[in-house]
Formats: sequence, structure tokens, C-alpha cells
Amino acid sequence: MLRVDLLLLDLVVILVLARLLGAGARLIGQPPVIGEITAGILLGPSLLGDLIGEDLFPSGIQAPLKALADVGLVLFMFVVGLELDQRLVRGRGKVAAGVSLGSTLLPFGLGALLALAIADEHVDGGDKLAFVLFLGAAMSATAFPVLARILTDRGMHRTRLGGLALACAAVIDVLAWTALAAVVALAGSGEGQWKIAFALPFALVMILGVRPALRRLVPAYEKAGRLTPDLLAIVLIGLFLSAWATEWLHVHFIFGAFLFGAVMPRGGAAERLNHEILERLEQLAVLLLLPMFFVVSGFNVDLGALQVSSFGTLAAILFVAIFGKLAGTYAAARLLGVPNRESAGLAALLNTRGLTEIVILSVGLERGILDTELYSLMVLMALLTTAMTGPLLSRLYPRERVEAELAETGRLAPGEHRAHRIMVIVDDLSRAAELAAEGAARAAGRESAELVLAHLRPYPVERLEVGLGLSSELAEMADTLSVLKAAAASVSDASLSVQVISRFSADVEGELAGLLTAAAPDEVLGAPMPPAPPLPRS
Amino acid sequence: MLRVDLLLLDLVVILVLARLLGAGARLIGQPPVIGEITAGILLGPSLLGDLIGEDLFPSGIQAPLKALADVGLVLFMFVVGLELDQRLVRGRGKVAAGVSLGSTLLPFGLGALLALAIADEHVDGGDKLAFVLFLGAAMSATAFPVLARILTDRGMHRTRLGGLALACAAVIDVLAWTALAAVVALAGSGEGQWKIAFALPFALVMILGVRPALRRLVPAYEKAGRLTPDLLAIVLIGLFLSAWATEWLHVHFIFGAFLFGAVMPRGGAAERLNHEILERLEQLAVLLLLPMFFVVSGFNVDLGALQVSSFGTLAAILFVAIFGKLAGTYAAARLLGVPNRESAGLAALLNTRGLTEIVILSVGLERGILDTELYSLMVLMALLTTAMTGPLLSRLYPRERVEAELAETGRLAPGEHRAHRIMVIVDDLSRAAELAAEGAARAAGRESAELVLAHLRPYPVERLEVGLGLSSELAEMADTLSVLKAAAASVSDASLSVQVISRFSADVEGELAGLLTAAAPDEVLGAPMPPAPPLPRS
Repeated sequence: MLRVDLLLLDLVVILVLARLLGAGARLIGQPPVIGEITAGILLGPSLLGDLIGEDLFPSGIQAPLKALADVGLVLFMFVVGLELDQRLVRGRGKVAAGVSLGSTLLPFGLGALLALAIADEHVDGGDKLAFVLFLGAAMSATAFPVLARILTDRGMHRTRLGGLALACAAVIDVLAWTALAAVVALAGSGEGQWKIAFALPFALVMILGVRPALRRLVPAYEKAGRLTPDLLAIVLIGLFLSAWATEWLHVHFIFGAFLFGAVMPRGGAAERLNHEILERLEQLAVLLLLPMFFVVSGFNVDLGALQVSSFGTLAAILFVAIFGKLAGTYAAARLLGVPNRESAGLAALLNTRGLTEIVILSVGLERGILDTELYSLMVLMALLTTAMTGPLLSRLYPRERVEAELAETGRLAPGEHRAHRIMVIVDDLSRAAELAAEGAARAAGRESAELVLAHLRPYPVERLEVGLGLSSELAEMADTLSVLKAAAASVSDASLSVQVISRFSADVEGELAGLLTAAAPDEVLGAPMPPAPPLPRS
Repeated sequence: MLRVDLLLLDLVVILVLARLLGAGARLIGQPPVIGEITAGILLGPSLLGDLIGEDLFPSGIQAPLKALADVGLVLFMFVVGLELDQRLVRGRGKVAAGVSLGSTLLPFGLGALLALAIADEHVDGGDKLAFVLFLGAAMSATAFPVLARILTDRGMHRTRLGGLALACAAVIDVLAWTALAAVVALAGSGEGQWKIAFALPFALVMILGVRPALRRLVPAYEKAGRLTPDLLAIVLIGLFLSAWATEWLHVHFIFGAFLFGAVMPRGGAAERLNHEILERLEQLAVLLLLPMFFVVSGFNVDLGALQVSSFGTLAAILFVAIFGKLAGTYAAARLLGVPNRESAGLAALLNTRGLTEIVILSVGLERGILDTELYSLMVLMALLTTAMTGPLLSRLYPRERVEAELAETGRLAPGEHRAHRIMVIVDDLSRAAELAAEGAARAAGRESAELVLAHLRPYPVERLEVGLGLSSELAEMADTLSVLKAAAASVSDASLSVQVISRFSADVEGELAGLLTAAAPDEVLGAPMPPAPPLPRS
């Protein structure tokens, strides 16, 4: 029998505490997720547990709360999958892949070594191999949502470092979830374990069968002109079905939810569709249900039960997680020719574990791979690495540096022996090729000319709020750049160099004027007419 | 221990069945809620119960599903309260109050009589008075959301009948929920029952204290320019707190949720705030969580357990519910001077019980006032009265009649000895008084003149979808009319009669042109310039 009064009271307590501590975290310049995780730990057995735990969260209420948390987690993982966008990686695939490997392999290896060292204490008749692999995978995670949030908060997602960090985080996301799924599959045992054999075929069906099928939502969406309840219902049904299927296959439902988000259609009208879906799911899911997940996760953190020996383990975990991530990332980035300071910034950014880590850890606990002590220590590690990202980044990339870099990307490299410069203002992206050709025609006959294709976009519709939901902006920019670059490639030749400038702008006209001043072109094509100067009074 | 695979599978089964049967209901011209309630009954013990019940819904999963259902119900009742708007009643308060009384008192009285007759069979040591009052209250409900949906589907919410029906349904909503809260309070017994004494003070605190406090959300919303997560969190926390408080007071959480919706700020920027809140809550709440409520309700319907004697009771229930509602409404409306056919239409409309009834019944079952048999029979009554509304209304108010009435409200009464007619196009509502005065000045000196203030509004931003959420449009129209009427009153006198026309239009310019043709005014003020006729080719 469900005690509904208790359920409602718990919802209030959880929401209030999560919002308060989230706001507190923001106040001290930290991502809200830090406060929200802390809220979960506070309500768990570590601190208030003995005082209020029995009254507020008796055992009868935990299954209902977990149900709400799990629904929230399904929606959250769907959003994480939906935000995964290969266009983030486009144009920097090689560097992103290399850095991601360095950024995961070193912490994975160190984590596995640490696991071997502590296995005797923490694996109680369980699967030692699974434990070793799990700890490795758990060490190598990066929180894409927290990272994206940190970057946008600082306006850094428009810098080269920001773009690269997002690309790496996207690759790491795929690596980490795949590795984790494999570990969970390995760790399972007992009845029905044969089903795991269907995990890979299932993923293939999703990618090869479900993805094209989902594309058919897009024309239906365009025809309706908005997200109808039927469309949203289809997405939700598919999502829960996919989550159920992976759970049934003895993997874990988070993978099905993530995969379903990842195979949603992309590009063009699909982006608007995704944006509308996000808008609907995000606020309720992130605001109402996800805090339940934090609290349910917090129930399992028991700091009171830690012993003196635990602190040695904690130190080792922190060393592996932080040193492994920073060193792995930095070394790989330097090897691939990323400048020194950018490599360091990248390392600081990818070290953030955030919510992703908590999800991974709760899977490990649930599947019996982690014991409570190790789980508690790893949650502390997740909190600490997330909290250190902001301050570390501020040291490596102070505000002024970001400003300077942003200004630089907007300005043109001052050529030394300057060619005849023709600036083409591309106001309509579909005419990019045409305008580029027109510009090239003006340059014809000159020995050396320079064409600049400039395209400023107004910021896309209202930005989403709660922690996630900004990759659509980044993806749009990637699309824009690829259109401009294609247009540039179609006209450039030995005598004509072509540059491309594109960015989002809150004040397109104003920035365009600034751009014209900075570039000082010899000719301008497609520029808006400057306002006529007032006639002098006679 | 929560079996998450089962939870996910149940979510899928429930969603799919609710959507399918909802779509099926729409196909045969019925409100989707009919199909959704049927889906709940199908999954309950009556039909598939023996086959799949134990596998799909074992007892361990029912508390988690109920938790989801209860969260959905809190959100739903909040929306119902939010849609309640006294401006719906404005200008027809007397008729609405009178019809509502007739529409509730007769079924209440008949229901109470029926309850007395069957009390011996169905009250097993419980409170007989509570049973009698509860059955009376349950008979007199009307489903505002279903009614609003039927009206808009037919475009009838713009007719006089539609406006009156909505006003009555709003009044009945308040009457029914208040009566039900009183009955539930009465029916309670045992430990902590003294708390009920605080129910009335609580309601007063909500109305006198919380309502003004909530108004302070509006400037915060206007400053932010959109619904921030913090604002939404405050609303959600207040909502769950209020729901918890009424549950704690031994009333029921639905009343707290309803009341919190009812005390949300109204008018001006608050309408936009409410619209945004609705948009966020509605789709997930109605689409994902409310079907859980249908199914949990359906668990308790056991048609298989009905006996032959039950059918006598069912017949009596149907008679009381249908005859009581139809006769009570019709008689009251006729007495108050509503024309014959409109009175009949009103009766047909207010007979719809829909989801409101299911909520009431599940409260009765939960509190032990209703037994399973009576609960099942009353659910059948709710289904039947909802299903009969559409066909009955179509007979009384065929499509052509609605069209004719809509056309009529747009056209002006053709005066017999026609005065000088001045038409004033009010394009900006804030200038209504000024334009009316200007029109009156033109009429000055004439013995008899007629002023027509016309104001067409484009349809407000995207209309919400799922079953609810259209009263903001109606409320906006009520506001508009009151502004125009005030302007009209300020200039009308013995020699100048003033009429007011206002409606929503999908094509303001086109309809304005039509309006000018229909009204054939002698003078037009503030009209947009008609396009110049093409010059004849020389």
C-alpha cells in the first residue's frame, strides 16, 4: 500500500533541497549538479539518515521513489543520446578521436591496476574480471552535459578549444557507454544470461532498422507543423520499449534509452523536432524526476560507514581519476599538435565526471559489481572532479583570454602582402554557392585575390535551460560551416584564396558593421545598404 | 525491490493501449478519454486480468505504478484548477449559477435517495451518511475538460451556448469539488481525524495568503522574459506542498492540487506565465502519467464480479445520473429564460462525466466509501454519459445550426428603420475608449445614430493540445469584450446606440472586409485603406 502523503512530502523535501543546494552551487560558481548530488547524499544514511531517514524514507516508499527516479533516468539518458551529434566531431575527427583515446585509455589502465590491487578487499565471491573492467571504465568517463554547460556559461563553446572539448566529450560518451555495456554484460550471471548474446544484434537493429524508420517521423512532423501528442507518444513508446529491451537483455535500461536518443533523426527539420521534444521532456524530467535519481543514488552513499583504511583507497581513486585523465588527455593532445595551453584546458575540461559518473556508479552498485564503500568513495571522486573543473579552467583560461580568442576568431588574419579583398555577405545560406561564384567573377583577371564569405546567424530560438540542450546550436553552426566551406571550395583556385567566417550573433547588423571595419575589404558584395548620411542643412 | 524491467514494460503496454484506444475513440467521433478509460478497464481484472495480470502487474509493481499515477493526478488537478477562470462566468453569472444549481441539486437529491435505498447492501459497517452524500456528489459532477474539448472540436465555444456551458461547468467544478471535500472530511474516522478542522482555515490561507504571494511570480516572470527553471520549481514545490497538506489534513491530495491551480495569478502577463507552465506540464503529465492513473483506476473495476442483481443497480444509477442531470439542467435553464433548444443543448453538454467522475470515484473507493461493485458500476456510468454527449449534442445542435449561429454572431442585426451607422475598427484595444469617443463625435447632432465597435483578434499563440488548455482563449475574449463594452457604455446615450463585435479570427483582414460588407456602414473610422482599384488601361 502506497503512503501517498509520504510520497508527496518526500517529493517536496527532495525538490526543495535539490533546488536550494543547486542554487548554492551556482552562487559559488559551481555547476548546479554538484549541489543536487550533495542533496542526495545529505538525505541518505550518511548524514540525516539516522535522524529522519526512518520517518521520511521508510522502506515502503523506496520502490515508488525508485520508479520515479528510473523514469527520470530513462528520459535523461534519452536526452544525452539525443545531444550526441556526429556533426560536433566533423572536421576534427582525427584530433578528437586521438585525444579521446588518450583521455580514456590512461585512466582505464590505471583504474584497472588499482582494481587489481584492491580486488581482494572489495570483490566478495563476485566476478573479478568484471570488477577490474568496471573500475577502469568508471575512471574514464566524462560528463558531456556538465562540460557543455561550463563551456556555454563562459561563452567558450564558440572558441576552438570549446569545439574540440565538445567533440572529444562526444566521442568519450560513445566509448564509455559501449565499454560499460560490455562490462555489465560480462558481469551478469545466472538465469537468462544467454540473452546477452542478443545485445549486439539489438544495437545493429536499432542503428540499421529503427534509425531509418524514425526518419519517417520528420515528414509527419513537418506536415503537422508542430509536435503533436501522437508524435510525442510514438517517441516515448519507442524510448521505453528500447529501454525495456536492453534491461531484458541483461544489459541495463540506460543503454537502450541512450541508444534510442542516438538514433533519432538529425539535420534540417529533424532538429526542430528534436528541439521541441527536448523542450517537453527536459523541464519535467530534469526538474522533477532527476532529483529523485540523485536522492535514490544518495541513499546508497554511506560516508558514516567509511573506515580509516577507506581514505587510502580514496586517495588512490582520486590520483587515478585525476592524474589519469589530465595526463592522458594532455599527452594525447600535445602529440596531435594541439597547442600547449589548449591541451591543458582540454585536460581540465574532460576531467569533469558529473552526473554521467553517478549513473555509471549506480549501475555498478545495482549489478553487485561495486560494494557500498567503493561506491561511496567513487561518488566523492565524481563530486570532486566536477567541482575542480571550473577553478582549474579559470586558471588555465582566464576570462580575458577567452575574450581575446573570441575577438580573434571574428577578425581576419591580417595578411602581410595583402591581396585584393572581396567580402561577400551571405545573408541567405542557400545562395552561398551562387554568391561565392559572383564574388569569384569579380576577382577574375586579378593575379591574386582574396574572397571572404561571411555569414552571421541570429541565435537560434530560445535556448534550453536545465543543464542540457545546447548542442543543437553547435550542430547548426557545424552545418552552416560545411555549406560555406563547400561554396568556398567550389571557387577557390591558385589565384583566389577563400576564407569563411560564420558565427552566432545577438546583433547581426551591428556585428556585421564591425566585421566590415575589421576586414576593411576592397569590395563588398551583398552588404546591406548603409543608411544614407543626413543631408547638411543648407 | 523494484523490478525495473517490469516497470518499463508496463509503461509501454499502458502507453500503447491508451493511445490506441484513444485514437479508436476519436475515429468513432468520441473524446479520446473514453478509449483511455477503457484501456484501464481492459488491463484490470475484468478482462485480461486472469490472463496477464499476474505476469504483467504483480503486486510488487502496483505501488510504483500508483506513485506515477498519483504524480500525474496532482499535475492534472493543478491544470484543472488553473483552467478554472472566473472570467468565464463574467456577464452571465446569474444564469450560470442558476443552471449549475439545477444541474447539481436534482442529481444530488436523486443520488442520495438511491443511496438510501441501496445503503444496506453497500455500506458494511461504514458511515451511512457519508455514503449517501458521496453518491449524491458523485452523481452531480460534470467534466469541464471533456466538455471544453467537445465544444472546441465543434467550434461551438464561440457560440452563446458554448460560453454558457463553459460558465456552468466552471461553477459546477467548484461546487462538486467543495462538496466532495466536505464528504471525504465527514467520512474519515480514526486517528488524526481532528486535523480535518484545519481544512477550512487551510483553504482560507490559500486564497487570502498564497494567492497574493503567487502574484509576485508575475514580475519575476516578466523580468526573466520566460519561464525559468527556478520559477517552475517554485510552482511545483508549492503544488506538491499544497497537495501534501490536504492529504495530511485527511481530506485528499487532489483538493490541494486543484486549489493551488485555482489560486495561481490571472490576467495580463500571468496568462502567458500560466500558458508556459501548462505547456511544460501538460504533455508529459497528460501523455505519460495520466494513463497510469487510468490503469490504476481500471485495476479496481471488476466487471467479472458483477451479479445479476448488479444490473438493477446499474439501471438505477444510469437513470439517476442521466435523468437527474438532463432534467435538472433543462428545467433550471428554461426557468431562467434560456431558449428551448439551447436549454436542451446545455443539458446534453453538462451530462458529460468523463475523467472528473473517475477521479471522484477513485477517491470514494480509496476512502472505503464505495465498494468495488458500486465503483465498477459508477465507472460504467461515467463512460456511458461521456459517450452519449457527442451524439446527443449532434441531434440537438446539428452542424448547420452551429454554422448559422456562428455566422449570426458575426453579422449585425439588420435594423428595421436603420439609423446612420458608423463603424469603428478598433485595431488597438488600448485606444478603444478614444476611438469610441471619436465615433460618437461624428454622430453628434444626428437624431439617431448607431456606432459599431469592431475588434478582431488573431488567434492567440499555438493552442495547447491534450484535452485541456483552451480556457485562456476564452478568458482573453472575455477581457476583450469587457474593454469594448466599457468603451461603448462611455459614449452611448439616447440618440446613439452602440454595438460591440469581437472575435478571434485566423484571417483578420479578410474577415474585416467581410464584416464591412455585411454591416454596410455609412461611415467607417479607423479602417485599413482598401487597396486601390487597378487603373483601367487607356
